[in-house]
Amino acid sequence: MLQAAIISKPQKPELAGILRDLIAWLEARNYHYLLDPDSAAYVSGANPIARVDLPNHKPNLVIVLGGDGTLLAAARAFARTTTPILSVNLGSLGFLTEIPLSELYSTLEAWCDNCAEIEVRSMMRAEIIRDGQIVKQWDALNDVVVAKGTIARMGDFSVEIDQQAVATFRADGIIVSTPTGSTAYNLAADGPIVMPSVNAMLVTPICPHLLTIRPIVVPGDSTVSVEVVGVPNEIYLTVDGQEAVQLKLGDLVHCQRSEAAVRLLRHSPNGLFSVLRSKLKWGER
Amino acid sequence: MLQAAIISKPQKPELAGILRDLIAWLEARNYHYLLDPDSAAYVSGANPIARVDLPNHKPNLVIVLGGDGTLLAAARAFARTTTPILSVNLGSLGFLTEIPLSELYSTLEAWCDNCAEIEVRSMMRAEIIRDGQIVKQWDALNDVVVAKGTIARMGDFSVEIDQQAVATFRADGIIVSTPTGSTAYNLAADGPIVMPSVNAMLVTPICPHLLTIRPIVVPGDSTVSVEVVGVPNEIYLTVDGQEAVQLKLGDLVHCQRSEAAVRLLRHSPNGLFSVLRSKLKWGER
Amino acid sequence: MLQAAIISKPQKPELAGILRDLIAWLEARNYHYLLDPDSAAYVSGANPIARVDLPNHKPNLVIVLGGDGTLLAAARAFARTTTPILSVNLGSLGFLTEIPLSELYSTLEAWCDNCAEIEVRSMMRAEIIRDGQIVKQWDALNDVVVAKGTIARMGDFSVEIDQQAVATFRADGIIVSTPTGSTAYNLAADGPIVMPSVNAMLVTPICPHLLTIRPIVVPGDSTVSVEVVGVPNEIYLTVDGQEAVQLKLGDLVHCQRSEAAVRLLRHSPNGLFSVLRSKLKWGER
Amino acid sequence: MLQAAIISKPQKPELAGILRDLIAWLEARNYHYLLDPDSAAYVSGANPIARVDLPNHKPNLVIVLGGDGTLLAAARAFARTTTPILSVNLGSLGFLTEIPLSELYSTLEAWCDNCAEIEVRSMMRAEIIRDGQIVKQWDALNDVVVAKGTIARMGDFSVEIDQQAVATFRADGIIVSTPTGSTAYNLAADGPIVMPSVNAMLVTPICPHLLTIRPIVVPGDSTVSVEVVGVPNEIYLTVDGQEAVQLKLGDLVHCQRSEAAVRLLRHSPNGLFSVLRSKLKWGER
Repeated sequence: MLQAAIISKPQKPELAGILRDLIAWLEARNYHYLLDPDSAAYVSGANPIARVDLPNHKPNLVIVLGGDGTLLAAARAFARTTTPILSVNLGSLGFLTEIPLSELYSTLEAWCDNCAEIEVRSMMRAEIIRDGQIVKQWDALNDVVVAKGTIARMGDFSVEIDQQAVATFRADGIIVSTPTGSTAYNLAADGPIVMPSVNAMLVTPICPHLLTIRPIVVPGDSTVSVEVVGVPNEIYLTVDGQEAVQLKLGDLVHCQRSEAAVRLLRHSPNGLFSVLRSKLKWGER
Repeated sequence: MLQAAIISKPQKPELAGILRDLIAWLEARNYHYLLDPDSAAYVSGANPIARVDLPNHKPNLVIVLGGDGTLLAAARAFARTTTPILSVNLGSLGFLTEIPLSELYSTLEAWCDNCAEIEVRSMMRAEIIRDGQIVKQWDALNDVVVAKGTIARMGDFSVEIDQQAVATFRADGIIVSTPTGSTAYNLAADGPIVMPSVNAMLVTPICPHLLTIRPIVVPGDSTVSVEVVGVPNEIYLTVDGQEAVQLKLGDLVHCQRSEAAVRLLRHSPNGLFSVLRSKLKWGER
Repeated sequence: MLQAAIISKPQKPELAGILRDLIAWLEARNYHYLLDPDSAAYVSGANPIARVDLPNHKPNLVIVLGGDGTLLAAARAFARTTTPILSVNLGSLGFLTEIPLSELYSTLEAWCDNCAEIEVRSMMRAEIIRDGQIVKQWDALNDVVVAKGTIARMGDFSVEIDQQAVATFRADGIIVSTPTGSTAYNLAADGPIVMPSVNAMLVTPICPHLLTIRPIVVPGDSTVSVEVVGVPNEIYLTVDGQEAVQLKLGDLVHCQRSEAAVRLLRHSPNGLFSVLRSKLKWGER
Repeated sequence: MLQAAIISKPQKPELAGILRDLIAWLEARNYHYLLDPDSAAYVSGANPIARVDLPNHKPNLVIVLGGDGTLLAAARAFARTTTPILSVNLGSLGFLTEIPLSELYSTLEAWCDNCAEIEVRSMMRAEIIRDGQIVKQWDALNDVVVAKGTIARMGDFSVEIDQQAVATFRADGIIVSTPTGSTAYNLAADGPIVMPSVNAMLVTPICPHLLTIRPIVVPGDSTVSVEVVGVPNEIYLTVDGQEAVQLKLGDLVHCQRSEAAVRLLRHSPNGLFSVLRSKLKWGER
């Protein structure tokens, strides 16, 4: 029997009605469903399953109800699976969650009929290397940010690409992002938009002290390493804007393409430009 | 008897020789001198005086040996006096400390002869207002920065100018700077250069989420207020890149022209453009 | 008898109805009216008066029906008068023409009652100096642009402020703008927004070759001069985006505050920020 | 017998000595040489060959003495051949011409010994399509720029990627560039640096009217098309900053990877970052 895992944004009261309808739809088709705790909170008698445990139940589909943040969390949980994700946008349009609630059921129908388009988005493997040992690692869908903490004073970050020195940047921080992440923090830091089908990674300094420094687009199969070489300040690593850990002087952060990837159900081809026209008003004069 | 206070950058071994010569020069002219602890460390038998106590001795001149950071600290200490500051640049050219060591004595001679040019730089008064009370205040020569702390996730900052709402900005932070500070952090955050003689303040968002947001130049006699309205994160206020305090949700930061000002001895008129040509290579093709 | 001059945007068919109503309103109050040719085209039996001749009739008020472009043209025609301008925006919101058609009559009523707010906007005097002679001059409300022509190859522009050399910029061009013009071309060239009450001018290089070059905010009473020092290309001067003349090698363009100014009727105080929130979506997240 | 074609920058008097030495070096090794007119001007009794005719003589090597502009011209002439180019920089460091005169002979020796590294740089095919016909075409090493002419008023450019609409941009122009061209005009227009080994093209609007528009990195095997949809102004197409033709309303410019490519002799691996450190001072603090 097919089963769908449902992951919801916390504390969205409208979820009560949305989930009631969605569950009815699934039951009518004999689908089983699994609820994460933020979903179960709106379904009486539900049996919540922790997000990190959901992949163990091997659902056939993940339905995300929320925004880009909820999708990023779901993506990390299911990174090492091939389960597709149908991500419905409940608030303002997201760069990633482009399916509006009004198209939830038509997209589900398409998936049932095996005719939904699935777009594979590369993820990035980030590792912290301390004293020659990998001490922590993640799969990121958007970006890995190495940046200063509390005081508004810059850090020094030495960047290498495939073990070739690029430069030591004095900056608020360095963003290493996938093409998918090019529309996230990178955009606020004056980086370019990279189409998801380009085989590349982006290295974007945040507020660099030297005005000649620009974002760099590097090959997708290269290894970007960022070393913390000056610490006037606390330095933190943040993955997909969600998890942060403090780095030490001399820590190395290695970023490269992950074996993991995210499979997103799309409701229309070439979504990026229609999202840009909607979200960034590219259609206007 | 005239006396000069000397404030030095910490841990610069070359200060031993520089201070020996400078003290000899001062003694030869019957000047008294006062040494801050970082200067006294290089003068045997010296009697160090804490920086914050130096103004109480009412020196006629402050000599800063260091860089922009040392000058900023000296400026805050002497903000409420009219004592001029002669600031010598010991390292790479600073935006503020434009006098090289080779011109220390000619500038001192000019000062003795009452023919040194003194440039008055406005300072900015910053206050933290919590529950209707001023809980902390500073005079800043460069800038006041309200910005996110450890995790790379943006804050929401509501900005008013003279009690007129501008907007609520989602951003890494907000820089409020004097014209003098326009060449400091503001420049890295894509703000313009403002000539010191323009009667203005600058409000520059750091990595704003909305791409349509630009730095704003506001009248120098206006009051800029920044309210912390969203705290997904810790928010810190930093003054002149040196002192940081954590803010709470609802804290207001008020910035306006201070009664305090800094009096800088110059060795050449119109220093800004020659500094820009040197530091930013504006002379090059 | 009071009279109003009406200046319209060319070829806007909706003007037929708007002008019929406006003329009825004016006649009902015993106002005389004068029509420029683009207005007269929609009023049968009208007697058009060339825009440049309208000031000679000494109207008490100028009513502009159009957009920012129409206002800029009207502003130049009436620059040397003290006649206030009521500028109605017929299309998408303009930075200058913030009064929507729905508020035309309430603003007119306020003006009749002598209680309309009038905002004075500084203009800039631009002169071309060739072989020591002023060969052409204008009053600009927004900006003066000195820029390359047909081929995509940069020019060299030497900039002085009050006869102090700034630098020679290799760039597509140089924008010198008033605070009012800061929201025009300057914004597209990455310049800051300057509140109209700041006493300043802006010097903004267009696509400078050196990445360290930034827009400069200079005192409002200074003289900015731009000299064309390299001509790999044709160089043109454009005033308010409307009139262009070709420059020669060695031509100097002098910009300084004009004695002329524009008096704009406002319908709300502090319009700039409400325009920014509307036009640039500053209110959105 | 091996032969080398020599292409020089016009009017560089130091070429007299450089060419005398180079010709002596070539003759000593029994190489034949061919001189373009700008080289022949410094060699008495020389027989100049027009640049466009040089490829017909099938030289084994092209030696460029000049700067990036001279190399761009040579690259277009030899685009449809496989002849490698050794490009010596005679003036300030270029992004492309990274070999200094002091390394000319060691690089030549390496080439003779078949151990010179050759880097293949992709070129871009640009076509103007008018009324459904290709009316003109080029191979570009750096970029194709579609931009406004004389008056400082923007044009409207409709951009498609692989026949998918991106948006219609109001801007000074649009740059379509190769990774190689990312350090040329694109950099001045706020675009990113793209490593030459990334399989991509760049679409960078110049001074876009909408502030939300950013440079876009698109797949290297896509077709970018730019249509001139609004002409308040003359619009010109410029190839590699050198050749310009006027476009008409409705003209389409198609850009895609060319079959042609340039083979550059390198004297060191990973030249891009060392050039960035030198030219853009990335090594400095």
